[in-house]
Amino acid sequence: MSETQSLSRIDADLLNALMEKVSEFGSTGDGGIDRPALTDAHRDARDWFRSELEARGYTVLVDAIGNLFGRIDLAGPEAPLVMIGSHLDSQPRGGRFDGAYGVIAALAAIETFRRDGGTPRCNYVIADWMNEEGARFQPSLLGSSVFAGLIELDWALGRRDREGRSVGEELVRTGYKGTDAAPRPDLYLELHIEGDAKMETAGARIAPFLRHWGALKVRIEVTGEQNHTGPTPMEDRKDAVLGAAYIIAEVRRLADVAEDTLFTSVARVDISPNSPNIVPGKAVLFCELRAPEPAMLDWSEASLRAALPALAAKAATRAEIVSIDRRPAGKFDPRLARLTERVADDFGLPRMQLDTIGGHDAVALNAILPSIVFAVPSVGGVIHRNDEYTSPEDLAAGGDVLTDMVRRIDRAGADLDLALGANA
Amino acid sequence: MSETQSLSRIDADLLNALMEKVSEFGSTGDGGIDRPALTDAHRDARDWFRSELEARGYTVLVDAIGNLFGRIDLAGPEAPLVMIGSHLDSQPRGGRFDGAYGVIAALAAIETFRRDGGTPRCNYVIADWMNEEGARFQPSLLGSSVFAGLIELDWALGRRDREGRSVGEELVRTGYKGTDAAPRPDLYLELHIEGDAKMETAGARIAPFLRHWGALKVRIEVTGEQNHTGPTPMEDRKDAVLGAAYIIAEVRRLADVAEDTLFTSVARVDISPNSPNIVPGKAVLFCELRAPEPAMLDWSEASLRAALPALAAKAATRAEIVSIDRRPAGKFDPRLARLTERVADDFGLPRMQLDTIGGHDAVALNAILPSIVFAVPSVGGVIHRNDEYTSPEDLAAGGDVLTDMVRRIDRAGADLDLALGANA
Repeated sequence: MSETQSLSRIDADLLNALMEKVSEFGSTGDGGIDRPALTDAHRDARDWFRSELEARGYTVLVDAIGNLFGRIDLAGPEAPLVMIGSHLDSQPRGGRFDGAYGVIAALAAIETFRRDGGTPRCNYVIADWMNEEGARFQPSLLGSSVFAGLIELDWALGRRDREGRSVGEELVRTGYKGTDAAPRPDLYLELHIEGDAKMETAGARIAPFLRHWGALKVRIEVTGEQNHTGPTPMEDRKDAVLGAAYIIAEVRRLADVAEDTLFTSVARVDISPNSPNIVPGKAVLFCELRAPEPAMLDWSEASLRAALPALAAKAATRAEIVSIDRRPAGKFDPRLARLTERVADDFGLPRMQLDTIGGHDAVALNAILPSIVFAVPSVGGVIHRNDEYTSPEDLAAGGDVLTDMVRRIDRAGADLDLALGANA
Repeated sequence: MSETQSLSRIDADLLNALMEKVSEFGSTGDGGIDRPALTDAHRDARDWFRSELEARGYTVLVDAIGNLFGRIDLAGPEAPLVMIGSHLDSQPRGGRFDGAYGVIAALAAIETFRRDGGTPRCNYVIADWMNEEGARFQPSLLGSSVFAGLIELDWALGRRDREGRSVGEELVRTGYKGTDAAPRPDLYLELHIEGDAKMETAGARIAPFLRHWGALKVRIEVTGEQNHTGPTPMEDRKDAVLGAAYIIAEVRRLADVAEDTLFTSVARVDISPNSPNIVPGKAVLFCELRAPEPAMLDWSEASLRAALPALAAKAATRAEIVSIDRRPAGKFDPRLARLTERVADDFGLPRMQLDTIGGHDAVALNAILPSIVFAVPSVGGVIHRNDEYTSPEDLAAGGDVLTDMVRRIDRAGADLDLALGANA
């Protein structure tokens, strides 16, 4: 515990002040945030954050998919580059901590380190990833996935919201269609609130994610025939919503009967024309299948495919899988997980190990460089909702761990084995 | 058959020219129409129709719920008043004949009668009812129901579309918030396309509706809890869409097991927030139960009420019936039905008798004065869809029957017994 005396704590006043300010953009007035990607509220939050970066001497970069970076070179052009970040977009009627906390904590941690950290050996870049949430534009993790080379830029720019506006058009409209080359960091750190009550239940205050679950995001189109709900005889109806209902029930049933862990949902249904007295001609289901084990994903996909024709036929409709977005399961960098635990222990913060089931930008980043995401608790496990809440103490604890991780990584010149060894 | 020689045929050129013109407003380019109530397209169609009325000497009246009337007094202030009409609003991506045909045929029939009919004994008024369809604003038959005193004006003005705009606001915006007193006619005629293939199957070209089915329009709110679809454990989810799916399947099952005729549907579902990765917190179902016999409506309502709690609980949600709009079953005026048949026979048009299952403005009117709606076939029974189609020959045949009904009713001074007797 000789480290303890030199532990770096985050500037909590700065962290809190920045969190207060960022929560004004898209505020719903009840503590929540409505700031989906590339809306005016999102643009305003980014414009503000950009001005905060510039005022502190960071070089602001915007790449072709609208990722916003704030780079500060503290150690010369040959020094390793450490990236820290998350996202400023939110779910519709979402919470103020999901994403924004990670971006704000990155800035507060680096600013604290600049003030207290001695002679830096690394350069730093803060990332605000474009469209992590996938609420307005699917898929989620759009900006970080383009960054990591997991999806094509042109395809990402062509994604459209339900009003038909494309990512590319909305980037231009909001002023975030950049031309800068994205920085190429040596490692990536992300701080986030937990999306479950496991930490609260266990009394843990810090938790690195060891694994990320795999996910299949399956879009299913059910096609019936549009007709009047009055005169059309029941036996002649081809009701796309009825077909959808049978499929929704089956998707849930798969989770209930699976022999290993499987999470399933149908959370969005786009019905056409969705008029009370027209038999619906079309319904598009946004289905998710998530599991820590690839074998369960394979089983759930095969089971769904096998069940679809009969379920659709029961409503005299047809069902077709029109796209599947596949997120493979994987492991975060174990050295970064261990370092997170080491620092938490040195602060005396109770900790635990988690997997992440939801996507995080760190999942995309982890495909190409050592990455970690670690969590602080969210009261009641609430996330993606306006009453999402993390106490100032927990926000500061997460910030402390992040700040001291920066200090140790910097001192080791971003050599993770060295960073761990020095504190062994 | 001494009547045959003096039968009045509609001016088919006028009918066709007006039908062509009205189909331009809200045209979807594929033969269909997108002209929901109080949209710009609907306003443009009404503005055009109004100018057609004025150019022909009709007095245009707009009442407080936006019903548009064109009145022409041909027989002095004490003469009976005959009303003919339907509606110019359409379903989203609907067809060009549903509603518009009845309004246009009314004008063409009266114009033909003015030209050919000798000395008139009645005055006439054409009605274009506001929001028959109920697609944008619920309930349907809004303007005619206010006219008939079945619902309150203020309540009707307060109905809102899914963007929150009220009928009252949209009447003002489109220039149809009138202050004229509505005319009080002695009887009401309406010509419409059929919404089923029964006439086509039977080879009939004219069919009066004898009865209108009853309907219960039931709004059901399913309440769950909004959460992330990723980390939230399956056993903790309160998924409003899953609850909705169980209810949708049950609503269909009621129709399948009912011991007498029952039509059911859930054709609109409003999901909140309807984001792919948020467990939905709320789903509002727009359910319809329709039957010719009141006892079946009672049974279906009771069965639905009994089933709801367990269905909702199966998804850990709650379900509540938040409103029911009740349309009682009833009979149209039998003399007007008989007159329709008499005229059809005199034209040599094959005919049959039907009930109407869907709502028509004549159903509302029938509550306060002798009313009838009669139909011409729609190819394949298609209605509320862009490929809705009635041949020019059938449009003209319906117009002929309407025109000659006007002639006979006029000659009898709107005395229906006399009108029937004279042709016995």
